[in-house]
Amino acid sequence: MNWLDSLRWDRDGLVPVIAQEQESGDVLMFAWMNRDALAETARRGEAVYWSRSRQRLWHKGEESGHVQKVHEIRTDCDNDVVLLKVTQQGHEPAEPSIACHTGRHSCFFQRHENGEWHSVEPVLKDPEAIYR
Amino acid sequence: MNWLDSLRWDRDGLVPVIAQEQESGDVLMFAWMNRDALAETARRGEAVYWSRSRQRLWHKGEESGHVQKVHEIRTDCDNDVVLLKVTQQGHEPAEPSIACHTGRHSCFFQRHENGEWHSVEPVLKDPEAIYR
Repeated sequence: MNWLDSLRWDRDGLVPVIAQEQESGDVLMFAWMNRDALAETARRGEAVYWSRSRQRLWHKGEESGHVQKVHEIRTDCDNDVVLLKVTQQGHEPAEPSIACHTGRHSCFFQRHENGEWHSVEPVLKDPEAIYR
Repeated sequence: MNWLDSLRWDRDGLVPVIAQEQESGDVLMFAWMNRDALAETARRGEAVYWSRSRQRLWHKGEESGHVQKVHEIRTDCDNDVVLLKVTQQGHEPAEPSIACHTGRHSCFFQRHENGEWHSVEPVLKDPEAIYR
């Protein structure tokens, strides 16, 4: 059986995807893929997601330059989630690792403390400079 | 605003949840929570998920003893995904860290290689001994 057929796509034809930084182990972001996105990710060796808001394939970094080089594609015991191990690339080689559209390293920068969410990660680059 | 209200629950009233091991950074599993599950997770300091198959709250480890002690609850830039940083506890103190019902450390034990999925993580404990 084709490796794409053995995944359990949801009622919208999608699977949830976790992107984890290969070097640090940090969870960078969460997104979705359809079958074409996962096939394209494997073919290119770079993360290609399905944008639910724009309803189209989204080659991560196509605007920002923040491409994710894919080292491993994994799935879980239920075959219904994908885990990517990636190297987060910057717009320029010397840039820090930025996965989030807010200019932060990781999208998971809000931490629960006593009934409130607090931002606990710094903005590494002004988003206006990322998406100019 | 209540911290639970600021999350964007999906059309089923759920959010996807990633459980990451605090000590190793390994992504252990992926599950779902409804509002009650997340409130209960914060109250107990242990992961409580919403079981979509059983349609009830699922205190992880209630059968297996493989409880997840929660250190941090995070959400992402879109407020629609939760990341837990956990210590995976065993049935006995000396047991290795097992999150998966197959007896493996992580649920993400299948890796894509040349169009096939390969199991690349060992079974640490016989599932029949976990759920006896």
